[in-house]
Amino acid sequence: MDKRNIYADNAATTRVSDSVLNAMMPYFQQNFANPSGLYSPATASAKAVRQARADIAKYLGTENGEVFFTSCGTEADNWAIKSAVELTGKRRIITSRLEHHAVLKTCEYLKSKGFEITYLPCPENGIIEPEELKKAIGNDVAIVSVMLANNEIGTIQKVSEMAEICHGYGVLMHTDAVQAVGNIPVDFKALGVDMLSLSGHKIHAPKGIGALVVRKGLNLPPFIHGGKQELGRRAGTENVPYIMGLRQAISDATTGIEERSEYVLCLRERLVDGLLKIEMTRLNGDRADRLPGNANISFYGIEGESLALLLDMKGICVSSGSACTTGETEPSHVLKAIGLSDEWAKGALRITLSEDNTIEDVDYIVEMITEIVGKLRASSTLWKRTIG
Amino acid sequence: MDKRNIYADNAATTRVSDSVLNAMMPYFQQNFANPSGLYSPATASAKAVRQARADIAKYLGTENGEVFFTSCGTEADNWAIKSAVELTGKRRIITSRLEHHAVLKTCEYLKSKGFEITYLPCPENGIIEPEELKKAIGNDVAIVSVMLANNEIGTIQKVSEMAEICHGYGVLMHTDAVQAVGNIPVDFKALGVDMLSLSGHKIHAPKGIGALVVRKGLNLPPFIHGGKQELGRRAGTENVPYIMGLRQAISDATTGIEERSEYVLCLRERLVDGLLKIEMTRLNGDRADRLPGNANISFYGIEGESLALLLDMKGICVSSGSACTTGETEPSHVLKAIGLSDEWAKGALRITLSEDNTIEDVDYIVEMITEIVGKLRASSTLWKRTIG
Repeated sequence: MDKRNIYADNAATTRVSDSVLNAMMPYFQQNFANPSGLYSPATASAKAVRQARADIAKYLGTENGEVFFTSCGTEADNWAIKSAVELTGKRRIITSRLEHHAVLKTCEYLKSKGFEITYLPCPENGIIEPEELKKAIGNDVAIVSVMLANNEIGTIQKVSEMAEICHGYGVLMHTDAVQAVGNIPVDFKALGVDMLSLSGHKIHAPKGIGALVVRKGLNLPPFIHGGKQELGRRAGTENVPYIMGLRQAISDATTGIEERSEYVLCLRERLVDGLLKIEMTRLNGDRADRLPGNANISFYGIEGESLALLLDMKGICVSSGSACTTGETEPSHVLKAIGLSDEWAKGALRITLSEDNTIEDVDYIVEMITEIVGKLRASSTLWKRTIG
Repeated sequence: MDKRNIYADNAATTRVSDSVLNAMMPYFQQNFANPSGLYSPATASAKAVRQARADIAKYLGTENGEVFFTSCGTEADNWAIKSAVELTGKRRIITSRLEHHAVLKTCEYLKSKGFEITYLPCPENGIIEPEELKKAIGNDVAIVSVMLANNEIGTIQKVSEMAEICHGYGVLMHTDAVQAVGNIPVDFKALGVDMLSLSGHKIHAPKGIGALVVRKGLNLPPFIHGGKQELGRRAGTENVPYIMGLRQAISDATTGIEERSEYVLCLRERLVDGLLKIEMTRLNGDRADRLPGNANISFYGIEGESLALLLDMKGICVSSGSACTTGETEPSHVLKAIGLSDEWAKGALRITLSEDNTIEDVDYIVEMITEIVGKLRASSTLWKRTIG
């Protein structure tokens, strides 16, 4: 069979779409003025940014919140957590071990400065019970940060229930919705959180743009100090082209989301069914409450990294664990958090489909994985010792 | 005379050049893979970023330093100062009132957290005497931050002499070189600083990319925590297109800089000579030790903002004070720092030329300003009271 060219790592990043590229292009060379200027080309730039801010708020049901542009989801997560502890003066943070490194490493940094971090326990299906938050929360907590959808296993958390618990204690609630926006409907007001992070490059905008949505009335201090951009909350000249690209990407991502999700879900189910036919294989995370495009599957007795590299030789781009942790030799922190043994965790492969994938892609991926897993297991001492 | 279309606010931002746009384009839709991935398109992205980092280091004489990409000059300034106080554990910062708000507001924030800020005095020509640093410095200082070239009046500071003084005390030295790179030769090693901030959008790359150059061996802690991008120093998926654009912009900006500067300087001198013919007019900042394209001129008795708005109607884009402080009603902090009275400071106009401007542009600007200043003064009570 010929080598193909199948991109199935959409949780790591996505291709910039034609509509996003078209939305950005006028702002590089024609309408390039600094929005802070006084002259008419500058006020036109400022107006474009203002319109993008209002449109994104509308797309995300944010009538009770304000959109602040950042350079990425990671910056938004850092801002939310670091500024929440500054604002409240409280010394404890509640989060989970399923979070993205943008949250986990920020919490570890704050721990090194004397803050206390409470991690909510997580069952094997990857979905935290709000009851656990009830047990852990108290008036001493500055912020609770739990992601809306997981980047590795795609599981969707009960964020609105958690937000309600938080507000009973006057505690701020933040959610990292980087993986959720565009894949499931996201309504800021319905979620009830105080802060929500999102990123452009997971939804066909470029790498280098994100946003923090902040509930109106919450006077979150800036994280980056300087000029008065972003209503005085985030200094630095506005990245006008990418802001226009993010506006377009969120518009596209929130239009027809049900039909798109249904199609991607069909592909994902076909993929999972196909792969689970391989013996000693498991799907990681809840099968129902997860992002439609996400399949995270462990093949016992092999290294997910070797599998991903051999798939690359067949023209298939997928990830072993999270792209953000590539290069690490330890197994995925998320898979460990849901209780996988090292052997199972090391054999994990993350395949994340988008609407650009086809049934033919899925069948080819299943065929190639079945073949390669067989070969890898034939030379695996772990496999032979356990099974052979 | 017809309305023209003259952009003369290049210190606020610049148009993205064709070469920069061409350098970026392949990375939006073709080579879009996340550099953290395992597969070959991802390792190609990672290689491109690595090459850009090495090339920029070479262009800036940074054999003793490492280039870390940020989302803007402001982020780089925040990182340098906040991480320096964290690294050293010391509680005093030395800076000047001439700095960009990215430095000043960061220092004011740290002051609110109990840090002491010492401002070096500044004479009327806008050039700080290194002797003043000698008087102010001590072992209790975490970092000295003095900009290489000023964004409003273009004056060039004696940064290498200051760096030498700092190192005699084991104190870190940072310089904001956002306005300097591309306009004057910048050699990191020759400057002798520990950290240097730069920005893309002042040199024909887009808004939303910058860098902090850090001396090798200085273990500066991250400012944004999360993934292991940027050698573990700055988390967040790399903005690959803009990184490639920044590489191209710095390559272009450091090639033929002498010839370009000479041409721009000729234009500037013609502009200044023309404008100083208007009575009760002064050039702010040293005439010799300043950026070639910068003219900051005060017209007594009028408001610079009104002048800029009327010039806009003639198709001329210029700034009153710094673009980053537009919307403020107080006079420029830089002009106040070099001792201008409110009357003189409020009448300031900043015109910043680039190689895209022509002699015809300059003559038209002089003609229009002469005409408008006359009209504004005719209706100015301050002018009539003082002069009329």
